Amino acid sequence: MAEENVVYVGNKPSMNYVLAVVTQFHNGAKTVSIKARGRAISRAVDVAEIVRNKFMPEAKVTKVEIGTEEIKGEKPGNVSTINIELSK
Amino acid sequence: MAEENVVYVGNKPSMNYVLAVVTQFHNGAKTVSIKARGRAISRAVDVAEIVRNKFMPEAKVTKVEIGTEEIKGEKPGNVSTINIELSK
Repeated sequence: MAEENVVYVGNKPSMNYVLAVVTQFHNGAKTVSIKARGRAISRAVDVAEIVRNKFMPEAKVTKVEIGTEEIKGEKPGNVSTINIELSK
Repeated sequence: MAEENVVYVGNKPSMNYVLAVVTQFHNGAKTVSIKARGRAISRAVDVAEIVRNKFMPEAKVTKVEIGTEEIKGEKPGNVSTINIELSK
């Protein structure tokens, strides 16, 4: 598959992102990447856990990567990142 | 080693936990687990990234696990968890 299935988690309620992930699986995705930066990282873990525990017990966490991105612009600095890969 | 080397990340400044991790490595640990729940998960990722990027470039992330714990008591519910394993 050329295009990756990615859900970027931000500051909206977790359930918005949960539905986005479930929708991508229902549309045929075998793997969905849940990505977040900074304080949204906790929410990304919530999203992955809610998908697995409430909606798709057959989905497995196939990868969890953490990293750091450099922020440029007015407030330069570093921000942590996470990429959680769910597969069914 | 019978006892695991664990640093539990809570609501204090990240640098407190960074120093706890670095100290455990300096005391001979080959692997340190950085654990957190709920909103402290983002901070746990920060701690792991700061240790790797600023203090111990030789440390590698050897495992990242996410999970869910049930909270009992006055406010029952679920909380997400993370376990980041750093090894040198």
